Amino acid sequence: MEQESVVAKPRDVMPEGAKTLPARYYTDPVLFAAELDGLFGRMWFHAGRSEEASRPGQYFVREFNGHDIVVTRNSAGAVRAFHNVCRHRGTRLCTGPSGQLSGSLQCPYHAWTYDLDGRLIGAPHMDEVPHFRKADYPLLPVHADEWDGHVFLNLTDTPEPLHAQLGALVEKFRDWRMQDLRLGRRIAYDVKANWKLVIQNYNECLHCPNLHPALNRLSHYLSGENEPLRATYMGGRMDLRPGVDTLSWDGTCPRAFLPGLSAEDRRRVYYYAIFPNLLLSLHPDYMMTHTLWPIAADRTVNVCEWHFHPSELARGGFDPADCVEFWDMTNRQDWQVCELSQAGIASRAYVPGPYSNREDLLYAFDRFVVDFHERYAERRA
Amino acid sequence: MEQESVVAKPRDVMPEGAKTLPARYYTDPVLFAAELDGLFGRMWFHAGRSEEASRPGQYFVREFNGHDIVVTRNSAGAVRAFHNVCRHRGTRLCTGPSGQLSGSLQCPYHAWTYDLDGRLIGAPHMDEVPHFRKADYPLLPVHADEWDGHVFLNLTDTPEPLHAQLGALVEKFRDWRMQDLRLGRRIAYDVKANWKLVIQNYNECLHCPNLHPALNRLSHYLSGENEPLRATYMGGRMDLRPGVDTLSWDGTCPRAFLPGLSAEDRRRVYYYAIFPNLLLSLHPDYMMTHTLWPIAADRTVNVCEWHFHPSELARGGFDPADCVEFWDMTNRQDWQVCELSQAGIASRAYVPGPYSNREDLLYAFDRFVVDFHERYAERRA
Amino acid sequence: MEQESVVAKPRDVMPEGAKTLPARYYTDPVLFAAELDGLFGRMWFHAGRSEEASRPGQYFVREFNGHDIVVTRNSAGAVRAFHNVCRHRGTRLCTGPSGQLSGSLQCPYHAWTYDLDGRLIGAPHMDEVPHFRKADYPLLPVHADEWDGHVFLNLTDTPEPLHAQLGALVEKFRDWRMQDLRLGRRIAYDVKANWKLVIQNYNECLHCPNLHPALNRLSHYLSGENEPLRATYMGGRMDLRPGVDTLSWDGTCPRAFLPGLSAEDRRRVYYYAIFPNLLLSLHPDYMMTHTLWPIAADRTVNVCEWHFHPSELARGGFDPADCVEFWDMTNRQDWQVCELSQAGIASRAYVPGPYSNREDLLYAFDRFVVDFHERYAERRA
Repeated sequence: MEQESVVAKPRDVMPEGAKTLPARYYTDPVLFAAELDGLFGRMWFHAGRSEEASRPGQYFVREFNGHDIVVTRNSAGAVRAFHNVCRHRGTRLCTGPSGQLSGSLQCPYHAWTYDLDGRLIGAPHMDEVPHFRKADYPLLPVHADEWDGHVFLNLTDTPEPLHAQLGALVEKFRDWRMQDLRLGRRIAYDVKANWKLVIQNYNECLHCPNLHPALNRLSHYLSGENEPLRATYMGGRMDLRPGVDTLSWDGTCPRAFLPGLSAEDRRRVYYYAIFPNLLLSLHPDYMMTHTLWPIAADRTVNVCEWHFHPSELARGGFDPADCVEFWDMTNRQDWQVCELSQAGIASRAYVPGPYSNREDLLYAFDRFVVDFHERYAERRA
Repeated sequence: MEQESVVAKPRDVMPEGAKTLPARYYTDPVLFAAELDGLFGRMWFHAGRSEEASRPGQYFVREFNGHDIVVTRNSAGAVRAFHNVCRHRGTRLCTGPSGQLSGSLQCPYHAWTYDLDGRLIGAPHMDEVPHFRKADYPLLPVHADEWDGHVFLNLTDTPEPLHAQLGALVEKFRDWRMQDLRLGRRIAYDVKANWKLVIQNYNECLHCPNLHPALNRLSHYLSGENEPLRATYMGGRMDLRPGVDTLSWDGTCPRAFLPGLSAEDRRRVYYYAIFPNLLLSLHPDYMMTHTLWPIAADRTVNVCEWHFHPSELARGGFDPADCVEFWDMTNRQDWQVCELSQAGIASRAYVPGPYSNREDLLYAFDRFVVDFHERYAERRA
Repeated sequence: MEQESVVAKPRDVMPEGAKTLPARYYTDPVLFAAELDGLFGRMWFHAGRSEEASRPGQYFVREFNGHDIVVTRNSAGAVRAFHNVCRHRGTRLCTGPSGQLSGSLQCPYHAWTYDLDGRLIGAPHMDEVPHFRKADYPLLPVHADEWDGHVFLNLTDTPEPLHAQLGALVEKFRDWRMQDLRLGRRIAYDVKANWKLVIQNYNECLHCPNLHPALNRLSHYLSGENEPLRATYMGGRMDLRPGVDTLSWDGTCPRAFLPGLSAEDRRRVYYYAIFPNLLLSLHPDYMMTHTLWPIAADRTVNVCEWHFHPSELARGGFDPADCVEFWDMTNRQDWQVCELSQAGIASRAYVPGPYSNREDLLYAFDRFVVDFHERYAERRA
C-alpha cells in the first residue's frame, strides 16, 4: 500500500520499552571484527561501478578488512576479481587505485605475469625448479558479479547468487536503468562513527526538521512510506513537496527525468540501505550512492557518488552543483551528528534510550544486528 | 613552625635506602587506569573556575577519562554538571568547549531539550509512545561544587563534601580571596610524561639551581618550609630573596599586592599540590594554577592559568607578560625535564635511584601512591 | 672457486617445494619481539662508525628497542657506551643525537655528573644522605667494540668477543682498510616493511632486470658467486661488466680505487649481510653501509651511508653524486618493493610461494630464522 500525499500515515506502534542498543555494539572491537567477518565476509558487498572496469584490463583496487582486491574485466568482457598478491613472494601487483592493464598483470618485483583470468603465464627462472608448474599458481580469485551497473564482491568460496541476495530489488528498481548511468561526481568522507550509525541515520527522517531544514523544505519528513525490514535490505520512499521537482538547492530540476520512470516515481525519492554497505538513493533525475567501508568500530569511510544519464553528461556545460552541493551539505550535517552520537555512545555515562515510533526501521535493524551477533557467537561456540 | 630567612633549615633525614619508584608506576597502562579509576574517579577533581560558568546557562565542557561533562549554572545560580549525552540516542548535546545556553540544552540530532537542572522538557513525537514519561529521562548528573572560585567535580554517587577533602586548605588560603580573582592568561601544555612526574617536579626545588637559574635568583632553592604530606594535598612555601617583590622577569612587581595578605605572605610564594590534579601557586600579587589532565601513562595535558585581581585587569594597558613569560619559560624547562625523565624511566635500563633529603615530599608522595595501589588491588581481589 | 666472467654459474638446486615463510614471520608482533630480544638483544649489532666518537667525549646516541645508549670515547681513547639514564631519577643525560662532551656527562635535572668511564663524580646534596656512596651509582654500561672503523654494541652481560661473531670477515675484508674511510653522505630511509624483507631483498639479484635496469646494465644479475650462509652473516659478490669501473650513474669512476685492493677485487662488488643489522657493500672505490633499525614488525629505519677514502674527500670539489644518486634511486626502488611485499604478505589472502634456485640465500636465511624461533621458544618453555 503506497501513500500519495505528504500527510503522515502513523507508523505502527513499536514494542513497549523499545530502546537503542548498548554501547558495545558501536565501540567493541570484538563485535566490530565479528561484523566484518560474518557480514562483510559472507555477504555480497558493493565495491564499485561497472564503468570503472568497463574494458578488458581496466581495473580498480579495493583495500578492505585485510584484503586488497583487483577488479577488472577479462578479454571476454566478464568482470573478474583477484587478490592483489603475487603467488611468488606475496608482492602487491597493482600499486595504484585504478588504471588500465595491457592484457596482463605483472609483478613489479620479479616479473611474474598473469593473464586477465588470473592464470600465471610468466615466471622467470622458475623453469629451472623441478616439478614447478605454472598452473599451480594462479592469482587467488574473488567472486565478482554485477547488478544493473553495480559491482559486488563476495569473499566466500561458494556464494549464493548475487541476485538471490538482492531479492525483489532487482525488479523494483529496473525502471531506473541504473546500468546506463555514469559517474558525475565522487566525494569520499571519513566519518568518525560506527558504520551502523550511518545506516541508522540514513533510515529515519525524524531528525530532518532539526538537522536538515533545507531538505525538509523540499520533502516533508513525515511523507512517504517505509517497507518492512527485509533479510538483506531496508528502505522506503519520501515524496517531493508540491512544486519541487528534485532534491537540489532550490528544488528545480535542470536535467531531464530519467527515461522510463512512471509519473509516480518522478515525484518520489527512494532510499534503500542494501546490506551490508550500499545506500542507494534514487531521485527522478539522478542516482546517489553511498558505499560504506568500515575501518574501525568508530570509523567509516563513506564514498558518495552522483550518477547521471549520459545524455545529460554529454550536454555542453553540464554542472551537477545544484544536487551535489545540496547533498554534500546534507551529508556533512549527517556525518557530524553521527560523530556526535559515536562520541556520546562511547561516553561511560551512555545508557540505551527510548525509540519513537518514527524510528521503526532502526529498531528492526537493531534486532537484525543482535540476531546476527547471537548466531555468530553460537557458530563460534 | 614557619621560618623567616633564606637560610636553609635541614630537612628531616629520610629512611635509609629511600629510592624512587619502579618504572611500572610511570609506564604501566594498568596502573594508570587504576589511578584514573581509583583517584580521579573517586576524589573531587579540579575542573575549572567559577567565572567560566558565572551566569545561568554559561557553560564549559570537560572531556576526561571517557567522560564528557557539561558544567553550567542553573537559573537559581547554583553550579550544575551533567554528562554531555542525550538520553534519546546518546548524541553529545554541547559541541563546543564553552558557550552560553539560552536557558536550555537542545540535542542537535532530534531536538530533545533539557532545562538547566537537566530535566527533559521537550522530546518530539515521543508523546506517541505509550508509557513514555519525560521525567524518566533527565540528563545524568555529575556532582559539582565550588571552593573560593575553583570548580570541582566528583564522579561518585555519594561523595563526601568537597570541603572535607580540602581540609585545612580552606582556612589556610582564605586571605587570598581567590574567588575574587579573574583569568588573565591561559596556556595549555601537552607534556609527554606521567602526571605524577609533573607533581613530583612541582614539589622539590633541588633542581632549581641547575634547571631554573632565573627562578633561583629570585627565590633561593633552599628557602622556605614544606608541610608534611597530608591525606589529600602536599606543599610548602618558598621565600622571595631580599629586594624581590614577586616572581617575574626581574623580580619587580608592577601590580598591587592582593588585598588582605599579611606582611609575611607578601614575601612568600605558596606551592600546593591538591590531589589529584590542581597545582596552586599563590604569589603576593597573582595566583597561578596548573590543572592536570592525565591522557595516558606517558602523557598529561597541563592547563596553566594566571589569575589577577579585577582592579589590575581593569587598569588601562594591563599586561601580565612579566610573570606569564617568566613562568612560561620555567614551565617549559620543567616539562622538558619531565619528558626526559619519562623517557629515561621507560628505558629498559632504568632502576630506582636514591632520593636526597631535599626530596622529602616526593618520597612521601610515592608512599601515598604505593599505598593507593595496594588498597586498590585489595578492593579488586 | 671464484668465477671471473659474467656467464652465470648455475646455483645449486634447492629442496623440492622450497617456499617462502608464512606471513606471521613478517607481521606477528610476538615473533618480532622475540627477534629483538633473542637476536638484537644477544648479538653484537652495528651502531655507527668509529669516526662518530673519535675524540674523548665525542658522542652519539642510539635509541633502539626500549634502550637509549650513549656511545663515546674515554680519555684513554677507548670506545665506551652507557645507558642514557641518570642513576638518580632516571632522566636522560644526553638530549641530542650527537655532540661533544666537556669531559663529563651532567644530568640536566639535578646536575648529577659522570666521567667518561661512567663513574659518578658529582651528586649535589647527596652527601647529606647517610651511607650514600658515589661508587654505587655509576652509569650502567653497554659493551662496545670496534671492527675496522665500525662500532658494535652488545646488550648481554658477558658477550663473546666481537671478532668471534664476525669470524672470517675480519680477514676477508682487511684489504679495504675500512677504518681509514670517512663518511661522505648519509640518507635515512623509513621503510614500511619487516627488517627481514630488507635483508632478503639485499641478498638476491633475480629482481634486478625488472626492478633495477640501470644496475643490471652495470653488473649482470647472474654474475658472481654467493658464499653459503654462515652462522652470523651471508653474502656474495657480483662482477662489474666489461668497461664498467664502479657502480655509478654511468659506470665510470671519478675516484681512485681504494689502496690495497687486488686487481680482482677492483672488478667486483661485495654484498654482505652481517647479522643482525649491517649490510656491507664494498665497491672498488667506496664503501656503502646500510644499518637496519627494526621499529615494528612492519617498519624498519634503514640508515644508508657512503664512505670514501680521505684523500678523495680532501680533494677540491669532491662530489659523490655519481654513486650516491645511483644508489639512492636503487635503494628507493628496493624499499618500495619491500613495502609492496610487506603489504601483500599482510593480506589475508597471502600463502607462501615457491622459491627459484636464484633465491638460495633467502631460503637459507629463512631456515636460520625458523631455527632461531624454535630455539627461542624452547628456551622460554
